[in-house]
Amino acid sequence: MNTVEIIKKKRNGSSLTKDELKFLIDGYLNGSIADYQISAFLMAVYYKGMTDSETLQLTELMLNSGKRIDLNFLKGPKADKHSTGGVGDKTSMILAPQLALLGVYVPMISGRGLGHTGGTLDKLQSIPGFNINLSEEDYKNILQKTGCVMIGQTDDLAPADKKIYALRDVTATVDSMPLITSSILSKKLAEGTDSIVFDVKIGSGANLQDEEQSKELAKRLVSVSKKFGKKAIAVLTDMSEPLGYKTGNWLEIEECLEVMNGKQVRDLIKVNNVLAGAMLYLSGKAGSIDEGEKKASDILNSGKVFYKFIEMSELQNSDTDYIKDYTNLKRSKYSRTLKADKDGFINKLDAYGFGIANIMLGGGRQKTDDKIDYLSGIILHKKCGDKVNKGDVICELFSEHEQKLHLSSDYIKDAINIESELNFKKRLIIDIID
Amino acid sequence: MNTVEIIKKKRNGSSLTKDELKFLIDGYLNGSIADYQISAFLMAVYYKGMTDSETLQLTELMLNSGKRIDLNFLKGPKADKHSTGGVGDKTSMILAPQLALLGVYVPMISGRGLGHTGGTLDKLQSIPGFNINLSEEDYKNILQKTGCVMIGQTDDLAPADKKIYALRDVTATVDSMPLITSSILSKKLAEGTDSIVFDVKIGSGANLQDEEQSKELAKRLVSVSKKFGKKAIAVLTDMSEPLGYKTGNWLEIEECLEVMNGKQVRDLIKVNNVLAGAMLYLSGKAGSIDEGEKKASDILNSGKVFYKFIEMSELQNSDTDYIKDYTNLKRSKYSRTLKADKDGFINKLDAYGFGIANIMLGGGRQKTDDKIDYLSGIILHKKCGDKVNKGDVICELFSEHEQKLHLSSDYIKDAINIESELNFKKRLIIDIID
Repeated sequence: MNTVEIIKKKRNGSSLTKDELKFLIDGYLNGSIADYQISAFLMAVYYKGMTDSETLQLTELMLNSGKRIDLNFLKGPKADKHSTGGVGDKTSMILAPQLALLGVYVPMISGRGLGHTGGTLDKLQSIPGFNINLSEEDYKNILQKTGCVMIGQTDDLAPADKKIYALRDVTATVDSMPLITSSILSKKLAEGTDSIVFDVKIGSGANLQDEEQSKELAKRLVSVSKKFGKKAIAVLTDMSEPLGYKTGNWLEIEECLEVMNGKQVRDLIKVNNVLAGAMLYLSGKAGSIDEGEKKASDILNSGKVFYKFIEMSELQNSDTDYIKDYTNLKRSKYSRTLKADKDGFINKLDAYGFGIANIMLGGGRQKTDDKIDYLSGIILHKKCGDKVNKGDVICELFSEHEQKLHLSSDYIKDAINIESELNFKKRLIIDIID
Repeated sequence: MNTVEIIKKKRNGSSLTKDELKFLIDGYLNGSIADYQISAFLMAVYYKGMTDSETLQLTELMLNSGKRIDLNFLKGPKADKHSTGGVGDKTSMILAPQLALLGVYVPMISGRGLGHTGGTLDKLQSIPGFNINLSEEDYKNILQKTGCVMIGQTDDLAPADKKIYALRDVTATVDSMPLITSSILSKKLAEGTDSIVFDVKIGSGANLQDEEQSKELAKRLVSVSKKFGKKAIAVLTDMSEPLGYKTGNWLEIEECLEVMNGKQVRDLIKVNNVLAGAMLYLSGKAGSIDEGEKKASDILNSGKVFYKFIEMSELQNSDTDYIKDYTNLKRSKYSRTLKADKDGFINKLDAYGFGIANIMLGGGRQKTDDKIDYLSGIILHKKCGDKVNKGDVICELFSEHEQKLHLSSDYIKDAINIESELNFKKRLIIDIID
């Protein structure tokens, strides 16, 4: 087989055979095919797409490039949730202990913040001591003991994806449906769960900003997962405004702890419990997603989720006093409030704008080696659809650097829209694909 | 500026500014931008194209990446011809001495065979001793003394093109109009001539197989050349069957020597003299292309071109006895004739098929370090439109390896089409663009 001919075949819009894809992936991993050839191929895929069968084969090749974790020693269902990424998207911290309490093992492998979206690992590391780099043995032990564990991706899971993802990031080939699908799944399938629930975000703060594309991605994720023998459901959820009231690494942990202790944050709890319901349903612990949602709601209201989270965090080396002390507000050095400049209804709190502002405040990375300020972030005092009077506080910004407050304020002002008429219609759960 | 954002901008179909293109080319040359980013960019250009202004700017950037030869010390017009590549395309060897005799300096910088097409340098090197790697000083001295010189591309002419071309070759991004245009011109403009005549081939043996694309390329080559202050004309010529009767390195030199000595090879002489006429017209040595063609024909008929070719070859170190001895046929060890299998008219002698067969016989490279058999090749006894009887010899194949004769025979049989009706219409000069 000839690399240039294979690239040309895809470039001209034809489907590749499994052998041709294997030739490319194997060659890239063993060094016989150069990165400049793979990047040209990825750009051709960006334009010409891939069939379902090609996507499946690419996923399998990337999955099989590394090890697969065997969790068969666990007696009970194992499920995970994967979000396509959003702003203020903090359900993982609630879901893991919540499902563990309901008899479902949650071996969660998460990522860093990417672009304008936050990352679960960065949020967890806002808790002093929280260790996301466990050995496989510790990972399995904690999972068996407490029912849930949260770590980062290890080097031996889907190394082909790791290599290709790094190349996509620097060659403008990230936002391609088949490449996103195979990248997500090659990692998730290696985790060894029975079920996967996908939280596919829709709206300005999602990574794919087109609603049709998000639906197409949801369908592909579910259908390819099933072909690998996994149970799968995709929940399409709103990401037009930030989820919940708080964004920023520690602020999001804080909001999760508040919710575990009874605070009512409507959108966050609804999305969380539907995802939990879907995980329970797939795991055979509920007869329907609705029934699962009810069970999830009951356990959340019981207050037990907080203690399960503390238990897991302790096993992962955290300073649990810091967690328990969450009501004693930990805040950045500088803060600033933004107020309504007129009376009216809030029709927009643009999630993308809030996501970018959050990065600018110090909560994310603009370069891979940037240091994160864990306390920086934004607290909303209002949500979309709320009525405001001129002078009401809409949000509070926090940063360790005063200059960053000013820069991000301008950004946020553009992200807020107050009008005399109420034009906002909330659609929290947009669709469910199974 | 940010490399990924620039790639994304082109990927999404926007035009790049001169500064953005400069950022890419400079970055690629100084190593701050990786080859895998440039190859993704090239693939995006393949799909999204470039405006005339982008093509012009890319050409200028590649031209200015190296040195430009200064030929102002020559008192008289300076012209060159560039062919987009064909099979049996041997006009360079006639044109250079022919124009020199008519008062036009021809400083010709040529290339190797590429794909199924032959290369002038390989043909020249079938003459023992012919030195195509001259120092700049020798190059200028020979040009001044004899009026013509023929060499290969030096490392210091358009190095950005050299680097990008090598990348295109291995990433399936060769056949892109703006990339072809800027690649050809960045080299030709560096040569220091006043005029350039482009021989843009059309037909199965051309590098661009679509007629509309070839016309578009011709227009771009002429318009961009003019923007650089050069006089330029493109002649669109037929490449549906091989040009002349002989293909293969020495066989093509032999046919040129025969034509210089009075042999009538209609298509070769017509194409050659129209190109010569255009060069004379642009150089102010004729009032029109037609008048130039007449002058070119007269000097070719005088027999002087042969001696001018010998003079140049001698200055470039050739064994001139070998050239003068051309009537004493030099042939490969093995040969085979192919005969008509029925009565009828020859409607096709597919140039692409003959080009590939020629490579298979040993006359070209399949890998860059392949050795060429200079005597191998094909002699046609018939041309398209000729009437044949069953058993008539259509062509003779030559090779140093008997096995190669068999392999290429099959290839050639498919390239020949004999039918009871004459369906072939010859269009030697398809269009002239100025």
